[in-house]
Amino acid sequence: MTFLEKLDMAISKNNSLVCIGLDPDVDKMPASIRQHDQSLFEFNKAIISATADLVCAYKPNTAFYERHGADGINELYLTCRYIENKYPDIPIILDFKRGDIGNTNKYYAEFAFDYLAVDAVTIQPYQGRTAVQPFLDFKEKGIIVICRTSNQGAGEFQDLDIDGSKLYIQVAKRVINKWNDNKNCLLVVGATKPRELAELRRSLYDNTVFLVPGIGAQGGDIGLTLNSGLNSNNRGLIISVSRSIIYAGDNDNFQAAARLETLRLNDQINKYRSNNHG
Amino acid sequence: MTFLEKLDMAISKNNSLVCIGLDPDVDKMPASIRQHDQSLFEFNKAIISATADLVCAYKPNTAFYERHGADGINELYLTCRYIENKYPDIPIILDFKRGDIGNTNKYYAEFAFDYLAVDAVTIQPYQGRTAVQPFLDFKEKGIIVICRTSNQGAGEFQDLDIDGSKLYIQVAKRVINKWNDNKNCLLVVGATKPRELAELRRSLYDNTVFLVPGIGAQGGDIGLTLNSGLNSNNRGLIISVSRSIIYAGDNDNFQAAARLETLRLNDQINKYRSNNHG
Repeated sequence: MTFLEKLDMAISKNNSLVCIGLDPDVDKMPASIRQHDQSLFEFNKAIISATADLVCAYKPNTAFYERHGADGINELYLTCRYIENKYPDIPIILDFKRGDIGNTNKYYAEFAFDYLAVDAVTIQPYQGRTAVQPFLDFKEKGIIVICRTSNQGAGEFQDLDIDGSKLYIQVAKRVINKWNDNKNCLLVVGATKPRELAELRRSLYDNTVFLVPGIGAQGGDIGLTLNSGLNSNNRGLIISVSRSIIYAGDNDNFQAAARLETLRLNDQINKYRSNNHG
Repeated sequence: MTFLEKLDMAISKNNSLVCIGLDPDVDKMPASIRQHDQSLFEFNKAIISATADLVCAYKPNTAFYERHGADGINELYLTCRYIENKYPDIPIILDFKRGDIGNTNKYYAEFAFDYLAVDAVTIQPYQGRTAVQPFLDFKEKGIIVICRTSNQGAGEFQDLDIDGSKLYIQVAKRVINKWNDNKNCLLVVGATKPRELAELRRSLYDNTVFLVPGIGAQGGDIGLTLNSGLNSNNRGLIISVSRSIIYAGDNDNFQAAARLETLRLNDQINKYRSNNHG
């Protein structure tokens, strides 16, 4: 089964476009979790078990594990194994935004697809297709290319004008039309840019899937994002949320709070999905 | 002391612009090393102790460690500690080419500068200055931004035309003229592109330092690279070589072979540096 097939089944099963970013920060955890030897893993297990019937994917970001060195990477590994064993229907997206020459990307792909055994990765476009070919060659994996990001100031390069269209549009078109022989490419487009998302949805295939961070702590608007980005099947978006779910509670109620916030967000999103139908 | 000061002192002390890429690959190691539990670290120690008086920096690339998971990251940590303790005058460049939003880059910076305690990192430009500010804020560290890479096909985006100049030129100019408040920015420019290197040397400050991969296994020419990139002090370049040095020997002579190849390369480079003087 490919990543996109697994994603589609999880969307159907849980009726959800919500992807939870597993970005555990020891400073923001309840004391009861923080005192564990493996607090990142303990925190993740609690969040996952409280939300696994409400999401279409989980997305750990490597930075939150690497800051703790080898032990952190081990907890990332344990987190991936936990999801794989307990919730095998939920795909794992490794948010690592790596990019290097081909000879080196081959080993980043090993880290993601052999060691962590995740279903998809985020990657950088700047070195071009030949550099990222070792990722693209994993036909059954999702290769999610950074396109238009959600951060302030993202336009510094991404919005530069190239013969009348912006750099991020060039990236999107090349990735979807030229890099996509294995039909395994997706794009990262931030929710803080709904106009850009709408333009991309119009100009690319209806079945292109966008990973959309930026709702929640970063301030992206749900309605604008959904109306701009949904495809004709009311899908085509992975709405990635981290801080506003995993830190929804600030003490031992954090599991219930995370579940409630996921339910609320999912409900809000699904209203736009059904509106769109009518 | 800043990274650039430490680098300059190492260049002077060892009369060398050579940086060895510590990219250990178990499949290419002599059997005597491969059988060690910590073969990456053992291999690195052997290479480092054979070459530490001949280089201006060491540059481990994270991909070669991450492929081995948490254990690999531990061996990267041990490698950094070994250099720091035995050869404290030699700066360490962490080649990790990370890039994310600011909130996340903060933690990648922790991985590099707190956990591994390296002197410099390579980073991705695509998300713009606001995203990489957490790196730039480390005044005493070197922040080496990917600009024009050595891989085939690197021009797919890097050579796109923006109002008559290419994207990589825009990246170079913005990094050196706008991101560089702390005077801690450098650029990656591949040796396979000597014309581009010459153009950048002409158009940027004479004291801009370029990290130059691509000589050796990737086929970049030494003479063209030096003539194109040296500044008026016969410096301004970090010539990064990995495979052609660390795998110069194919059995238990690998230490001697690595030393000999480093001497040979250094000698060849320094001829161009003195020619340039005359």
